[in-house]
Amino acid sequence: MTDMVDKAVRRRHYRLPTLIMPSLPMSNDTLQLRRIAIDTYHENVAYLHRECSIYRAEGFQALSKIQVSADSAKVLAVLNVVDDDCIVAPGELGLSIQAFSRLGAAETTLVTVNHAEPPKSMDAVRRKIEGERLSQDDFTSIAKDIVETRYSKMEMAAFLVATCQNNLDRDELLYLTRAMLESGDRMNWHEALVADKHCIGGIPGNRTSMLVVPIVAAHGMLIPKTSSRAITSPAGTADTMEVLAEVNLSPDQLHDIVRKERGCLAWGGTARLAPVDDLLISVERPLGFDSQGQMVASILSKKLAAGSTHLIIDIPIGPTAKVRHMRQALALRKLFEFVGDRLNIHLEVMITNGSQPIGRGIGPVLEARDVMQVLENDPDAPEDLRQKSLHLAGRIIEFDPDVRGGQGYTIARDILESGRALSKMNAIMQAQGAKIIDLHPAGLSQDITAESSGVVTHIDNLQMAKIARMAGAPMLKKAGVDLCKKLGDPVKTGDTLYKIYAEFPADFKFARALAAQNNGYSIGREDQIVKSLIEF
Amino acid sequence: MTDMVDKAVRRRHYRLPTLIMPSLPMSNDTLQLRRIAIDTYHENVAYLHRECSIYRAEGFQALSKIQVSADSAKVLAVLNVVDDDCIVAPGELGLSIQAFSRLGAAETTLVTVNHAEPPKSMDAVRRKIEGERLSQDDFTSIAKDIVETRYSKMEMAAFLVATCQNNLDRDELLYLTRAMLESGDRMNWHEALVADKHCIGGIPGNRTSMLVVPIVAAHGMLIPKTSSRAITSPAGTADTMEVLAEVNLSPDQLHDIVRKERGCLAWGGTARLAPVDDLLISVERPLGFDSQGQMVASILSKKLAAGSTHLIIDIPIGPTAKVRHMRQALALRKLFEFVGDRLNIHLEVMITNGSQPIGRGIGPVLEARDVMQVLENDPDAPEDLRQKSLHLAGRIIEFDPDVRGGQGYTIARDILESGRALSKMNAIMQAQGAKIIDLHPAGLSQDITAESSGVVTHIDNLQMAKIARMAGAPMLKKAGVDLCKKLGDPVKTGDTLYKIYAEFPADFKFARALAAQNNGYSIGREDQIVKSLIEF
Repeated sequence: MTDMVDKAVRRRHYRLPTLIMPSLPMSNDTLQLRRIAIDTYHENVAYLHRECSIYRAEGFQALSKIQVSADSAKVLAVLNVVDDDCIVAPGELGLSIQAFSRLGAAETTLVTVNHAEPPKSMDAVRRKIEGERLSQDDFTSIAKDIVETRYSKMEMAAFLVATCQNNLDRDELLYLTRAMLESGDRMNWHEALVADKHCIGGIPGNRTSMLVVPIVAAHGMLIPKTSSRAITSPAGTADTMEVLAEVNLSPDQLHDIVRKERGCLAWGGTARLAPVDDLLISVERPLGFDSQGQMVASILSKKLAAGSTHLIIDIPIGPTAKVRHMRQALALRKLFEFVGDRLNIHLEVMITNGSQPIGRGIGPVLEARDVMQVLENDPDAPEDLRQKSLHLAGRIIEFDPDVRGGQGYTIARDILESGRALSKMNAIMQAQGAKIIDLHPAGLSQDITAESSGVVTHIDNLQMAKIARMAGAPMLKKAGVDLCKKLGDPVKTGDTLYKIYAEFPADFKFARALAAQNNGYSIGREDQIVKSLIEF
Repeated sequence: MTDMVDKAVRRRHYRLPTLIMPSLPMSNDTLQLRRIAIDTYHENVAYLHRECSIYRAEGFQALSKIQVSADSAKVLAVLNVVDDDCIVAPGELGLSIQAFSRLGAAETTLVTVNHAEPPKSMDAVRRKIEGERLSQDDFTSIAKDIVETRYSKMEMAAFLVATCQNNLDRDELLYLTRAMLESGDRMNWHEALVADKHCIGGIPGNRTSMLVVPIVAAHGMLIPKTSSRAITSPAGTADTMEVLAEVNLSPDQLHDIVRKERGCLAWGGTARLAPVDDLLISVERPLGFDSQGQMVASILSKKLAAGSTHLIIDIPIGPTAKVRHMRQALALRKLFEFVGDRLNIHLEVMITNGSQPIGRGIGPVLEARDVMQVLENDPDAPEDLRQKSLHLAGRIIEFDPDVRGGQGYTIARDILESGRALSKMNAIMQAQGAKIIDLHPAGLSQDITAESSGVVTHIDNLQMAKIARMAGAPMLKKAGVDLCKKLGDPVKTGDTLYKIYAEFPADFKFARALAAQNNGYSIGREDQIVKSLIEF
């Protein structure tokens, strides 16, 4: 061994005098920016060639994030190392579609790369993991770092789990809501009463907003409804309204329409309303957990940002709904009330029947059809959708100080039956930019039939949503599921329970395979029908 | 409105008879497999063109994971959507380097794509998040799904946070350790006493294994040491040993060497020892949290898988060590003992002085130089590294039933001073495949000097590790930091505290910038020196 190692050399180097290094001109450190046409969905990704002569990819990789700077703009990005010059050359730095647009620099701009420190607010997340209570400042910094896309998906997942369920007390929940609200812009309608409604979700076909808005607006109240698109459900209100009219409206267009029509049904994504929420949801949904606290913060921050002053929250309850027990529904109501009161929004919770899908259609076109049937007072219109919408609209109308308590439902019904709701809907559609409406479902279709006789005792909301989604909803508007039987309906072997509609063979196959595995329906005796404590 | 919607058409379609669809031949669903030369570091990524005519990328994207199947092989992968035919064409399905090799199919193989269900064991993770206690079966399924790369990084992060800190009781920790152990292979040395040591980490320069192994093996005990490479530290034992000899050895080579030399210093990555651990660490480290429970499970599963029967665990304690207080060290010791006893490994914990780096060098070449100085009985050899190694080796030697209690240290010292440890090290190096050794540090060098006079009162382990890492260690073997002053040493303004060595200008700049920001040293009065309760 001793002959293998030159001890003298070793010693000499250990005491080596400092080398004088020339100062490093910036141009030595730069790479050419390149847009890589890869959509990495809410996560910034940077692509660096393994043979990059300036930055050693491996040195960065374990900590996984780098900071890319162009003049004054910066983005943090997760690093992927590339071995293919066609994707990114050794002298280039690639950014995924979203990261590239966030940096906002042109291709071939010279950029520098730096080690990215984990976001400072991750210290607070770690403290939370250790069981500490966080302050308003902690939540504010976390929201700021997330909105500036300084968090990787892993880090967001860590935050979500750390603040899940029983880990947040209600004051912390208030702080989180406020931080999310303050992460974006806030609309101001300059009126004392700005009505809104929101459902916590989970019930397919539950398109009450498209009925509540025209009814309430026809009554003269301001109801500027912004909705989300579906993320993991087969249709959101924005997806369904899009069948009938444009929903991508600029904040200016939105204001004009609302000033004229007293209401709108627009996609909320054009305004920066609680943008943290969208980022967190993009991690929360694939993880498949629903935390009550995060749900409250998400809904209230979005509604406050949208300028709402009076809000009805719809909590459906049922064996396959998000909320399955009354005590859970009541606990959730208290949380909404606690945070809502402190953030100065008048809020009422309605606990509704979530034991099966609402209406018949599941998927944008099929749901739009149900909505139009109700608005047109079609005798075939699904009665559950009609009744639920009237009750919700009635409660909102009672926010009007001139309406006597208990009269809201009757007023709502009159507006619907007189055709004033339909006229208002038409006016809103025209104002937003009406479309040539085609309510035909997709061309591939399959009947799912009963395998025994009896009555329908149970319909699984989750399974029906999944089948509709596999069939292509909401991306393909005409895809989905159309229910022919609802809870309590008598069926005979071979009767059609529902139809699956799909545009593409692959989707059609996925949906049919899923329905073959579990069709979501139970057939049994009258006394086995899932009972609900709630009427509508 | 009524004129815009053809009610009759709508009604007709609602009651549309079932269309008869031809059965779908498989060939309609297939895409050509393509290897995409992007290294996505422990996460499978699939690339699908946005205009793919068979599968609609958006339909898959929200849930983010897909299953790619080729004959009987399958992989789950996170989906990235591509708009560039050069990366992936509409008829192709791309897989990142790791995912491609996991699938094990050739390019142009026809593959099908399916919606990936979230791994079943995520239910258990969600139950854990909700505060439930998990069973052995739960942990076994989680480990299985992780090892089969069914978990995305987000899901692994969720699992890590959910099982962090106080969230696991000690029985659950035992279950987790067992599940991790059983996730891979287990070595069997067919001897009653297989010694091993492990440090929980966090102290730069702490290369005691490279001294303990030759001393213990020279005593005749079996010590087949497998080590990890650094992930977020500036050098692991495998990185440092690699300066002197090959460390990538097949399990067969390993057995041959150990049979002949009674010891080895190899990288543990060639055998499938508790592979779950490596995957979890790839998420845990960037998140920057250290959970005691996960540390215990990680260390013990690896050691048991390596076939160890007798183990010394080194827990350094100090203000910038992983463990900062004696009560924490004791709690950790109890956890190790609880799990170790139940999994039938004889385990002793040594709590050691972690108040500053051990030895002088930080980085593979500089640390290898320190080790060789000690083995060669060089009077300049770092005394702290020598003493700590002798104490650890002594404790292991006392596992030998023929050694009288208290005699281990003396035996170890005799082996070292007689040159038998050096001979054994040379023999191990030759057996593993000795390298032409070059212990010169890298060419770019900078002295970091004292800004005041006094004594060194504090050296920050974390900051020194970070500076060495920025300088390029461990990827660049010759990069790192060389300490000239240690705790208690008197210094005058301008004296060199340490030297930074780097190979590349960008690294050199990063390291110098970091040292300029915080050089990691405190200079003060004698009475301010960080005291440790522990001698070595």
